[in-house]
Amino acid sequence: MMKGVPYLVAVAILALAFSLASAYDPSPLQDFCVAINNTDSAVFVNGKFCKDPIYVTANDFFFSGLNIPGNTTVNKLGSSVNLVKVDKLLGLNTLGISLARLDFAPYGLNPPHIHPRGTELLVVMEGQTNAVAFAGLSSQNPGLITIASTVFGSNPPINPNVLTKAFQLDKNVVDYLQKQF
Amino acid sequence: MMKGVPYLVAVAILALAFSLASAYDPSPLQDFCVAINNTDSAVFVNGKFCKDPIYVTANDFFFSGLNIPGNTTVNKLGSSVNLVKVDKLLGLNTLGISLARLDFAPYGLNPPHIHPRGTELLVVMEGQTNAVAFAGLSSQNPGLITIASTVFGSNPPINPNVLTKAFQLDKNVVDYLQKQF
Amino acid sequence: MMKGVPYLVAVAILALAFSLASAYDPSPLQDFCVAINNTDSAVFVNGKFCKDPIYVTANDFFFSGLNIPGNTTVNKLGSSVNLVKVDKLLGLNTLGISLARLDFAPYGLNPPHIHPRGTELLVVMEGQTNAVAFAGLSSQNPGLITIASTVFGSNPPINPNVLTKAFQLDKNVVDYLQKQF
Amino acid sequence: MMKGVPYLVAVAILALAFSLASAYDPSPLQDFCVAINNTDSAVFVNGKFCKDPIYVTANDFFFSGLNIPGNTTVNKLGSSVNLVKVDKLLGLNTLGISLARLDFAPYGLNPPHIHPRGTELLVVMEGQTNAVAFAGLSSQNPGLITIASTVFGSNPPINPNVLTKAFQLDKNVVDYLQKQF
Amino acid sequence: MMKGVPYLVAVAILALAFSLASAYDPSPLQDFCVAINNTDSAVFVNGKFCKDPIYVTANDFFFSGLNIPGNTTVNKLGSSVNLVKVDKLLGLNTLGISLARLDFAPYGLNPPHIHPRGTELLVVMEGQTNAVAFAGLSSQNPGLITIASTVFGSNPPINPNVLTKAFQLDKNVVDYLQKQF
Amino acid sequence: MMKGVPYLVAVAILALAFSLASAYDPSPLQDFCVAINNTDSAVFVNGKFCKDPIYVTANDFFFSGLNIPGNTTVNKLGSSVNLVKVDKLLGLNTLGISLARLDFAPYGLNPPHIHPRGTELLVVMEGQTNAVAFAGLSSQNPGLITIASTVFGSNPPINPNVLTKAFQLDKNVVDYLQKQF
Repeated sequence: MMKGVPYLVAVAILALAFSLASAYDPSPLQDFCVAINNTDSAVFVNGKFCKDPIYVTANDFFFSGLNIPGNTTVNKLGSSVNLVKVDKLLGLNTLGISLARLDFAPYGLNPPHIHPRGTELLVVMEGQTNAVAFAGLSSQNPGLITIASTVFGSNPPINPNVLTKAFQLDKNVVDYLQKQF
Repeated sequence: MMKGVPYLVAVAILALAFSLASAYDPSPLQDFCVAINNTDSAVFVNGKFCKDPIYVTANDFFFSGLNIPGNTTVNKLGSSVNLVKVDKLLGLNTLGISLARLDFAPYGLNPPHIHPRGTELLVVMEGQTNAVAFAGLSSQNPGLITIASTVFGSNPPINPNVLTKAFQLDKNVVDYLQKQF
Repeated sequence: MMKGVPYLVAVAILALAFSLASAYDPSPLQDFCVAINNTDSAVFVNGKFCKDPIYVTANDFFFSGLNIPGNTTVNKLGSSVNLVKVDKLLGLNTLGISLARLDFAPYGLNPPHIHPRGTELLVVMEGQTNAVAFAGLSSQNPGLITIASTVFGSNPPINPNVLTKAFQLDKNVVDYLQKQF
Repeated sequence: MMKGVPYLVAVAILALAFSLASAYDPSPLQDFCVAINNTDSAVFVNGKFCKDPIYVTANDFFFSGLNIPGNTTVNKLGSSVNLVKVDKLLGLNTLGISLARLDFAPYGLNPPHIHPRGTELLVVMEGQTNAVAFAGLSSQNPGLITIASTVFGSNPPINPNVLTKAFQLDKNVVDYLQKQF
Repeated sequence: MMKGVPYLVAVAILALAFSLASAYDPSPLQDFCVAINNTDSAVFVNGKFCKDPIYVTANDFFFSGLNIPGNTTVNKLGSSVNLVKVDKLLGLNTLGISLARLDFAPYGLNPPHIHPRGTELLVVMEGQTNAVAFAGLSSQNPGLITIASTVFGSNPPINPNVLTKAFQLDKNVVDYLQKQF
Repeated sequence: MMKGVPYLVAVAILALAFSLASAYDPSPLQDFCVAINNTDSAVFVNGKFCKDPIYVTANDFFFSGLNIPGNTTVNKLGSSVNLVKVDKLLGLNTLGISLARLDFAPYGLNPPHIHPRGTELLVVMEGQTNAVAFAGLSSQNPGLITIASTVFGSNPPINPNVLTKAFQLDKNVVDYLQKQF
C-alpha cells in the first residue's frame, strides 16, 4: 500500500511497478450505470447516482486528453498526476477500475502515498530525463492519502505534541513541517 | 462486456476505450500472497496458493519485457496481445488487477471477445499505421471468451444443427466455420 | 458461461445442467429492500431504490403465473423464456437470485448466450416432445448476451469488415447475417 | 431468513415463495474450480480444494436423480428435502448457487429454519394432496439452522434454565422438548 | 450464528465469546458516506443515503453515553442491550462495523438469537453479580432475529398447527406461547 | 484511515472514536473454518487453512487474558496494544472481525497508523491518568501501517533523497529519523 516512485532517471523503459490493494468495489447490478454529477443535490449514495440509461451514449465511456503532458513545475516535487477516475470518466461508475498518467521532470518524484481502495499497477513508458508512466487502479475511486501532507498538513492539525512523540522529532521541526504543508 | 477494437488507423493517439466488468476478485486477507505455480500438485484452490512470505522479494512484484512489440503476423487478424496476469506476474495474486499490451498491424483487429471476470480500460498509445495500446483489467485473471472460436471451434463441437438455427446460417456455412476454428 | 440447450427430445426428465458464474451481487444492508419502479425519475442507483418498508407486504415477495406455458411459436428457435428477475418480482432486490421458466417445442433450442452476472442452474422437468425446464440464477438481474444477435444485430452495427475478419466469413454472409438480426 | 412452508394443500400450482439472503459467496478467480472431496486430508480451505482442471469433464457439472420423489414418511413432519449443494454436485464450487427438491405428504411441512448463507427462491410445482417444489439457493453451501432442533436438540445442550426463561416455558416442557430432539 | 449468553455469574472477567458471521457489507466507494435519516422521503437505497460531505464533521463519527448502564428490570430476562449501529452513529455507514453494550442482572440472560448480517465478538468486562459486556459486530446493521419471539410472536402469526408439528409441542402450549410473545 | 489517539487525559469515560474502513473479508463458505497454524508448510492460501471440523471445539472460539494490562513502559510512546486477530484466536478465520485492548500511560499515545483492511471502532473504557480502551476491527487480520516507522524505518530504507523532498525536510533530519526507526 505504501508506494513512492523515486528518481526515474535510471528506470528502464516499460518497466512495471505496483502497490498493494486492500479493497474491491461492490459489483454492478446492471450492465452499466453511468454516473451523474449531482452537485446541486443534498443527498448522495455510496458511489454515484446513475444517468437515465436511455440517454447513455458511447461518449460516456470515452475520455481524451491523456496525450497532453502534465505540468511538472507547479510543485517542488517535479511530478504531475492526472488521475482519470469516475469523476472525470462517468462511465466508470460500478466498473471497478480507473487510470492515471504520471509525468516526471528529471529527479522528480511521486511522494509516498496510499490508495486505500485499490491496487496500482504501473507501466513506465519512457524514462531517463523526462519520464512518463501509466497506471491502472482497481477501483473507480481508489482514494489518495499523501503521507507527508496528511500527517503534517491536516485541517484541523494533529496536536504537535503527538507528532513530536510519534516521529521522535524536535518540536521545532514539527512546527516547521506543519507550516510547510 | 462485448468488445472489439476495429481498424485503429483512424484512432487518435492516447484515446481511451473500455469494456464493462461484471465481477470483482475476493479481497486479500493479508498484505500480499505471491502466487506459486503448483504444477506438480494434484490440488488447487480458488485462485492460487501463496509463496512462503519469508521468501518474497521485490522481484515478485516486477515484470519486464513490455517494451517488446508483439508479433502481429502469426494469425490472420493482424494483432497480438500480451496479457500480464497472475500466471506471469505472481505478485498480482489477491490484488485484483492485471495488464495487457496490444499491438496492431495496419487493418489489424482484436476480434469480439469477453472478459468474464473484469472490466477492461484501454489506452491507445499511438496509432495510424502500426498501433500499440495498453489495457488495465480489474482482475488478477480476467478470463477470455473469444466469440468466434468459442462458438465455432469448441472441443467437443457444438451440434451444428444448433448453430445453424441460432445463427440463421446455411448448414454448409456452419460446417465451413467449424473447420476454420 | 457459454451455454446452449440443444434439442431436448432425448433429454432425461429432471436432468440438471448449468453454466458458470462470474459475479455476485453486493450484500444487503437491511433485512429487505423491495424495489420500486422509478420510471418517472431521472436518476437511478446501482440496483434499485427501495420501497418504504412500512408499505412492504408479503405480496412483494410472491409471483404467480409460472404455470402458464410460454409460446414457442413466436420465433424461429422454437423456445420461450420467462425470466423472473427483480423487475418482475420486486422483493428480489438485494437478495442475489432470480428464476426462469423455459419452454421448448420439439427441436426447439435456446441459442448460445451468456449471463454476465450469474451462474445458471437448470432443472429439466419433462422432455421428449414438448419440454419444460426451470432455472435458478445467482443474481437479481443476471443480464443476457445472446451471441448471434449481439454480434450481428447490434445497434449501431459492428463494422462488417471486423466481423468478416473475426469470423473468417465471406463479406456477403456477414451482410446477410446483419440483415437477419 | 425465517421460513416455513405450511400445509400445502391449499397452495396454487407454480406459486412462488422465498426467504431472504444475507450473504454472497466469494467470486471465482478462474473459469471453474470443481471441488474435490479431500476426506483423507487433515487440512481444509474456505470452501473446497479444486480438482486438477485437466481431469474436469462435463459430468462434473451434471447431477441426475431429482426425478425420484423423497420419502415423506421417515419423520413426523411429512416432508423430505434433497439439497443438491457442492458436496453432491462438485462443479458448483465457487459458483454461488445450489438447488433443492422438496416433497410434502398431505399436511406435511418443512419446519421453520434459516439458511445463513443464501436466499431461497421456491417454486411449487404441484400441490393439493402430495406436493413437490423446487428451490434455488444463492450459495454453493447455504447452510441450515432448523430452529426447533437447534434450540432444543443441540449437543452439548443449551442450559435448560436459559431456555425456560427465553421461551417463557415451564421447566418440564423444556425438559420434554430437549428429550424429543 | 445461534448465540445465547447464559447466567454470567460464573463468567470470568474479560473472557471472550462470539458468534459466527455469514455476510459482509458492500465496500465503500469513497472515504466516508455519513448516513442521513431520510424519514420524510418515500424512497430508500440499500443501506443509507449520504450526507453532503461538505457538512460532515468529526461529531458524525462520535457517540457518547455508553457509560450509562442499561435497565435490566424492564423485561423478564434480566438483561439490556444498547446496540450502536448506523441508525445511532451515522458515520458508520459503509464502514462495516457496529458496537453493543450489554448489561446483565444476576441470573439475567440474552435469549438465543441470530445476527443475520454479522459476526459478534464479545468481551465480558466484569461479572459475578451484575455484569457488563461489550460486543463488536461486523456490519453497520447486523440485524437481529430473536428466536423465541420471532417464532411464537410474529405478526401475522405462524399457523399454530405448523408450530405444533415443528416443535412437537401440545397445541395448548403453542397457544400459550403465541399469547406470551 | 489515518488515526491517532492523542493524550487521553481529557477524554471522557466510554467515549467512542474510530477510523474508516476500505475493505471487507471474503465471505465464509461453511459455518466455520478454524485456522490452523501451518508454519511447517511451504504453502499458504489467501487467509488460512482450516482445521479438520471434527476436531473443532468451543475453545477454538475463546480467548482469555484481556484482563491483563499491557506494559506501557517498553517504548517511548507510553502505550501498549494487544490485538487479538486470527493468529491468536484461530476461530476468527473467515469471520471478518478482530479485537484489541489498548493501554495508555499518562500522556501516552498510539502513533498515527492505518489498518488497510478494516474499520476500527474504539470504546474508551476509563481515562484521566492511566487509560484503557477496547477496539473492534472489521477484519480477521486488519493489517497495520505505522506511518513514522514505515516511512523512516522500512527495510530496505526508502532513498533519503526521496524523503527529503517529499517531507520538505533537511537531509540531516531525514538521516536522523532513519536512524531512530
